[in-house]
Amino acid sequence: MALPRWALPEYFEDVLPLEAQRVEALRRAVLDEFRLHGYQLVIPPAVEYLDSLVSGTGQDMADTMFKFVDQISGRTLGLRADTTPQVTRIDAHLLNRTGVARLCYCGPVVHVLPRSMTASREPLQIGAELYGHSGIEADVEVLRLLARTLQLAGARTSRIDIGHVGIFRTLSSLAGLNAEAEETLFGILQTKDVPALREFVANIAEPARSGLLALPDLYGDASVLLRARDRLPDVPGVHAALDELLHLSRQLGDLPLSFDLADLRGYLYHTGLMFAAYCGSSPTALALGGRYNEVGREFGRARPASGFSLDLRELAALGAVANASGAVLAPMDNAAELVVLIAQLREAGEVVMLELPGHTGDWREAGCDRRIELQNGAWCVVALED
Amino acid sequence: MALPRWALPEYFEDVLPLEAQRVEALRRAVLDEFRLHGYQLVIPPAVEYLDSLVSGTGQDMADTMFKFVDQISGRTLGLRADTTPQVTRIDAHLLNRTGVARLCYCGPVVHVLPRSMTASREPLQIGAELYGHSGIEADVEVLRLLARTLQLAGARTSRIDIGHVGIFRTLSSLAGLNAEAEETLFGILQTKDVPALREFVANIAEPARSGLLALPDLYGDASVLLRARDRLPDVPGVHAALDELLHLSRQLGDLPLSFDLADLRGYLYHTGLMFAAYCGSSPTALALGGRYNEVGREFGRARPASGFSLDLRELAALGAVANASGAVLAPMDNAAELVVLIAQLREAGEVVMLELPGHTGDWREAGCDRRIELQNGAWCVVALED
Repeated sequence: MALPRWALPEYFEDVLPLEAQRVEALRRAVLDEFRLHGYQLVIPPAVEYLDSLVSGTGQDMADTMFKFVDQISGRTLGLRADTTPQVTRIDAHLLNRTGVARLCYCGPVVHVLPRSMTASREPLQIGAELYGHSGIEADVEVLRLLARTLQLAGARTSRIDIGHVGIFRTLSSLAGLNAEAEETLFGILQTKDVPALREFVANIAEPARSGLLALPDLYGDASVLLRARDRLPDVPGVHAALDELLHLSRQLGDLPLSFDLADLRGYLYHTGLMFAAYCGSSPTALALGGRYNEVGREFGRARPASGFSLDLRELAALGAVANASGAVLAPMDNAAELVVLIAQLREAGEVVMLELPGHTGDWREAGCDRRIELQNGAWCVVALED
Repeated sequence: MALPRWALPEYFEDVLPLEAQRVEALRRAVLDEFRLHGYQLVIPPAVEYLDSLVSGTGQDMADTMFKFVDQISGRTLGLRADTTPQVTRIDAHLLNRTGVARLCYCGPVVHVLPRSMTASREPLQIGAELYGHSGIEADVEVLRLLARTLQLAGARTSRIDIGHVGIFRTLSSLAGLNAEAEETLFGILQTKDVPALREFVANIAEPARSGLLALPDLYGDASVLLRARDRLPDVPGVHAALDELLHLSRQLGDLPLSFDLADLRGYLYHTGLMFAAYCGSSPTALALGGRYNEVGREFGRARPASGFSLDLRELAALGAVANASGAVLAPMDNAAELVVLIAQLREAGEVVMLELPGHTGDWREAGCDRRIELQNGAWCVVALED
């Protein structure tokens, strides 16, 4: 059966007025908050050479993107599926600052397939990135900013899961795994498939073996970090990662942090701390973020980087629904007093729409709840009669 | 030679912090102005079925779009090159109001090739559309709103060119032209190729012949409309169009209107009044708009429609350049008084960024011009030393 002309592809949606107003208000609140913390807005293009869009993030990223050929250069272009590599390119190449750069962005990204059954194929991605500082202070700042962002939306943050790819990489290197074996291990840990893990580590020497075996158990509150000290190998890479996590748990004790040392979501691109924030009762992470110090390398400069991103529409949907604020219907008349009254109402933030002739009775659906009329020679705002 | 990884395709650009801040401020000002006049924001997706995106606008539109295949439906998707058909779909199908609907939008659109040597292939399109009113009052309102938008940007509007496709269509029908001949005539008029026009009309009967021959001369101020009454055929279609233009010139006498009855830009999609606004000394139109009553038909409902759109980045470039407002650098310290001072500064709109350890001397490039320091036991804001 032919679809009607107005049908949209699955997992793409229109945002209609009530929702759009909420998304726009939240967009401004979040970007203002970013700005007040020193994060400067950049707007990379939605389309770039595919090679640039996948730089430092691997082929996996290319598979998530729509691709097409540039008539000018003959090269393959991609429709961005993530803004972070673009902002990293801007930091590495265009701004080229020697010190810290704090950047933020907000714009649509497009995925070939949705990331979950409830996700859009076109998230309105908003995010903040801090470049040039390798210390854990940057991650603390970014996590604070994320918590503040969720709070601005009126969302209840139920949990922020924290992982650290440094522990996985240290154990993997200690075990002498090659890239292929590391990827297999990654798959096993992601599904927390303990029997497969036992089989996988059977021929790995201690202390990597028991370290890897311990990972699936190391999740929960900050006490996990103390247990991890006992159960993981006593080597510098593990110490450094656990020290960072401990610092984080002390600085952000007021946030609902939960540690999961086997959680490796996004490990292809992350290089240290990784986190995922959950709101309300949703099983899907609302925001993802962490450390990715290597993405800039292909743009000529690998800088320490830490940041997060989320879908602004998903975030807006979590907040309280604002009531439509109503609008005033004004007669089409050039009377000077009327013109002044309309200007004053708009100055005060009221929506005033002109009553185009011949549409009596249809104005409530456009949002009007009051009208201006002439009473005893004076223009007054009165309730809109039914 | 291989391009470096950071190179962008031609006619695509990054918007860096200073420009992005200006674009964002203007975006808010314009969307607020739209809202106060009753225009409600909608956010259609950047990607749709190609069939929907070209509905009512012809194959020409399809050629301006990047296309790719949907893995879910197997159908061809397009990356939108224009938002207007999408907003028309929303009006016709989703809102389905019986009365007037005022809608607006702001988001990127992408063109396969740039529309001019100075244009971007990814304009940030912002626009307003008024549906459901066929009278000239709608066009007057839309033109006023456009003038106000240009004024908000601090742009000097040098000229608003007004045309009317109704005159061309009436003459073409009077001459008995088929669709192919009409298209040839359209091409001739667009280039104002008078010798070709003489040749074309040689076999056309009066009064269509002299009417068509007169068109290239009918441009200039409102006096053109009086000359047109004399030189164009005395038929209802011409009268109706000239009456609309006359009404417009009376209602908008304060705007720099210029009439051009041979200007048919966008005639494939427009059905009445058409306009183009020029700012400063640029030879390219900054904003385009007009009447398009038929685009909604393929979505199930042809509604009267009038609106305009422009590239927000181009508009922002015309305004006065704001100075960066500076920022305050704050030490990383959890002292209660410092935390309060930082919150107060941000509350007052000041950007305050934390001084991450180990980056002494690099903060001016991030925009800092002041710093907070402890003087005699009190936290004070002082100038940032060089």
